[in-house]
Amino acid sequence: MAKELTKREENYAQWYNDLVIKADLAENSAVRGCMVIKPYGYAIWEKMQAALDKMFKDTGHVNAYFPLFIPKSFLSKEADHVEGFAKECAVVTHYRLKNDENGKGVVVDDTAKLEEELIVRPTSETIIWNTYKNWIQSYRDLPILCNQWANVVRWEMRTRLFLRTAEFLWQEGHTAHATKEEAVEETRKMLNVYARFAEEFMAVPVIKGLKTENERFAGALDTYCIEALMQDGKALQAGTSHFLGQNFAKAFDVQYLSKEGKQEFVWASSWGVSTRLMGALVMAHSDDSGLVLPPKLAPYHVVIVPIYKNQEQLNKISEKANNIKEALESKNVTVKYDDRDTHKPGWKFAEYELKGFPLRIAIGPRDLENNTLEVARRDTLTKEIVNADKIESYIVKTLDDIQQNIFKKAYNFREENTCSVDSWDEFKDVIENKGGFVAAHWDGTTETELAIKDETKATIRCLPLENDDTEKGKCIYSGSPSKQRVLFAKSY
Amino acid sequence: MAKELTKREENYAQWYNDLVIKADLAENSAVRGCMVIKPYGYAIWEKMQAALDKMFKDTGHVNAYFPLFIPKSFLSKEADHVEGFAKECAVVTHYRLKNDENGKGVVVDDTAKLEEELIVRPTSETIIWNTYKNWIQSYRDLPILCNQWANVVRWEMRTRLFLRTAEFLWQEGHTAHATKEEAVEETRKMLNVYARFAEEFMAVPVIKGLKTENERFAGALDTYCIEALMQDGKALQAGTSHFLGQNFAKAFDVQYLSKEGKQEFVWASSWGVSTRLMGALVMAHSDDSGLVLPPKLAPYHVVIVPIYKNQEQLNKISEKANNIKEALESKNVTVKYDDRDTHKPGWKFAEYELKGFPLRIAIGPRDLENNTLEVARRDTLTKEIVNADKIESYIVKTLDDIQQNIFKKAYNFREENTCSVDSWDEFKDVIENKGGFVAAHWDGTTETELAIKDETKATIRCLPLENDDTEKGKCIYSGSPSKQRVLFAKSY
Repeated sequence: MAKELTKREENYAQWYNDLVIKADLAENSAVRGCMVIKPYGYAIWEKMQAALDKMFKDTGHVNAYFPLFIPKSFLSKEADHVEGFAKECAVVTHYRLKNDENGKGVVVDDTAKLEEELIVRPTSETIIWNTYKNWIQSYRDLPILCNQWANVVRWEMRTRLFLRTAEFLWQEGHTAHATKEEAVEETRKMLNVYARFAEEFMAVPVIKGLKTENERFAGALDTYCIEALMQDGKALQAGTSHFLGQNFAKAFDVQYLSKEGKQEFVWASSWGVSTRLMGALVMAHSDDSGLVLPPKLAPYHVVIVPIYKNQEQLNKISEKANNIKEALESKNVTVKYDDRDTHKPGWKFAEYELKGFPLRIAIGPRDLENNTLEVARRDTLTKEIVNADKIESYIVKTLDDIQQNIFKKAYNFREENTCSVDSWDEFKDVIENKGGFVAAHWDGTTETELAIKDETKATIRCLPLENDDTEKGKCIYSGSPSKQRVLFAKSY
Repeated sequence: MAKELTKREENYAQWYNDLVIKADLAENSAVRGCMVIKPYGYAIWEKMQAALDKMFKDTGHVNAYFPLFIPKSFLSKEADHVEGFAKECAVVTHYRLKNDENGKGVVVDDTAKLEEELIVRPTSETIIWNTYKNWIQSYRDLPILCNQWANVVRWEMRTRLFLRTAEFLWQEGHTAHATKEEAVEETRKMLNVYARFAEEFMAVPVIKGLKTENERFAGALDTYCIEALMQDGKALQAGTSHFLGQNFAKAFDVQYLSKEGKQEFVWASSWGVSTRLMGALVMAHSDDSGLVLPPKLAPYHVVIVPIYKNQEQLNKISEKANNIKEALESKNVTVKYDDRDTHKPGWKFAEYELKGFPLRIAIGPRDLENNTLEVARRDTLTKEIVNADKIESYIVKTLDDIQQNIFKKAYNFREENTCSVDSWDEFKDVIENKGGFVAAHWDGTTETELAIKDETKATIRCLPLENDDTEKGKCIYSGSPSKQRVLFAKSY
């Protein structure tokens, strides 16, 4: 096999990076921290987009597009928001280049300086709420349920493909409501949409929860999140949904005339997932042979590889393969027939394992004689001989099996790597040596949260929504009273 | 009617601007030259995207994503390209803000200056060819057929919604080929895709042609274009496809090992259409009552408006309306049932005319009695009483009629506004007083082209591909020999 991957056991981070690059998902670009999403990776992202977009529309949302740039002063309008976002960002200061006087390329034209600098959006609350101000006069104009698919830029110092990049692709929903209740309901509804997407499409089980005050989105009153567990025992925040209260409405003076004839500030939510999901998808399921993709997000479901010694054999196999391809495609199964003569079957097997095609069909001369096909499953790396007449129903059923099996495997892994801990020593031991989610009592203070992070690198991933609310206890760190167990983990 | 539009006859430019804003397609933002694409406008753009994306994939292309930023030095690598693009653009010089020492908001952190400035992409040839260098070693790696859906920024001084904005959305295809012939074939193939999209989906007839040297894309050997005629007699360039020769391959040193074992530079094409198409769509078909949308791109095909005096009537009408809605939706007809009690039927009629819903069904108590429906066509502003039992087939057929009728109307308009002219006086008269496309002989020099532009504001829109090649003549301006008629017009 030409493309060796580092083994997960050896170096998980290196394995991830190798895999993203060798499976042709993405690569680093000439621009610091910005990645190129390659066609195979982008095809997976398109499948994610299509599924999410449909879920958003089915829940009453519409898409729109807001400017890439944000006037610098907008960022300062919401006090917490500016603290969180107006730091590491790309700043546009000029709008023209000119020829260098020495004749060497181009230089910035100093006479073309912007009066006010523009920030490349790190998130769009400010520019959108400045826009909503004109859209909202009365209760009749509410709710506004907009989503935007866009690129955003946050000047990260340490970047990793998909997981943390200076530029990334995402969607950001921004909704406006007449009442607090509606805004909270929306915030929770979209959290549930994200959880459903992660579990049903990505086959990644997630914990729904609330962030602590310290981990909240800058400008939010509450941040809900979904947290997933990766194979190295680290957690990954896969999506967030924020209840923004009236903060942005007040910052941009967005009021509406209520049914009762009173001027009221509008209530808001925002929610987003990004190309970071690609990282979660890769890390949740893949193995030392390469990607393992859930069928619902795989660019192709099946690859067919012919095994032949001469042109005559190839011709017969191709006829059969094309018939199978056509039959499967009529069942919405996507099929690639790889009859390239530049590569041997063994090379192709390894290549499609690396790329995570859920199923591989091999056809050789003996299969033609016996009316059989050899079908290999990527998730279990097992093979089976299948009667060619039954291939369609077999493939459809097996794809469904794979989708469920991948989820179940990830779910079991998470269960095995989640534990409850009641003492500080045990906590440190589990975080250090075992990893995974640790459910422990916490006294509710940021001080303790930060002290624990400082000593163990573990953070509070969330206050789980589905929790045994009645169980009270004592904080593992301070010994002070605790109202509920929270979930700790090291994280991405 | 609450939302008065300026009449086309009075002020076509104002009519356009009114319409874009009042029909909720787009609006200006707080950022100079950048627009907000509102949900209704974005829904049309999404339909355009979906149709184009399918056509690209059907012709073998894949999507990918490249960085938003381009290192300044990249722009200088292709000599013509830098002249064309490295001028009015957004320049990122810093990557951090800090709190103002006076406590007032944030200011640029001078210590966070980039070593090399980054340009917000005005187009992506340079960053993409810098990437392709790593993707291409041998003829086996070719062709590369990538497309990108993205935002780009060109610092335009005079902006108009959709037609010319600082930031706009577009797709840009960038292909790499082993031979010149293949690259030329690709360039022409995509021109044909654009023409087919314009005519079949937008219902806008277009002329396919070659740009003059003066109007070529910066860095191209040939620029092909599609040109459409708007209702005010001005032409609009609706899409371009460029044969780039080996210019970018040489600028970024992209070579491949040929089958014959020789190192060769790669051949290239690039092609793009943008949200400018939204402007073309609006201007080609709409009228003084509002938008006229071709059914294939309309967010909704049909609106149903109930006409009632009391709740009992409304209940009965709603039952019928919802049945019709469901039946139509099963035929892929999209339907909005507007039973809001906050607006009167007359207001709704005007509103949906403004928004260009192709068909409107009104249902009143008498319709229930007679088992009829009143169906109004947006394109002809005519009404018909239809037997309710036959509504599905009637609607499906009429939508098809509308799509064809809109195209035919635009086609006839173009034919009526295209003429051949053989003298300079006549040329000036037609350009000044009649407008439209003028086919005239030209001596082939940039000098003459610019002189004509200077005197009349008319530019050479293209050298039409479908032309009577045998007809030679004399240039209307210089009297020098001419090889073919070219198409002049004032333009957007």
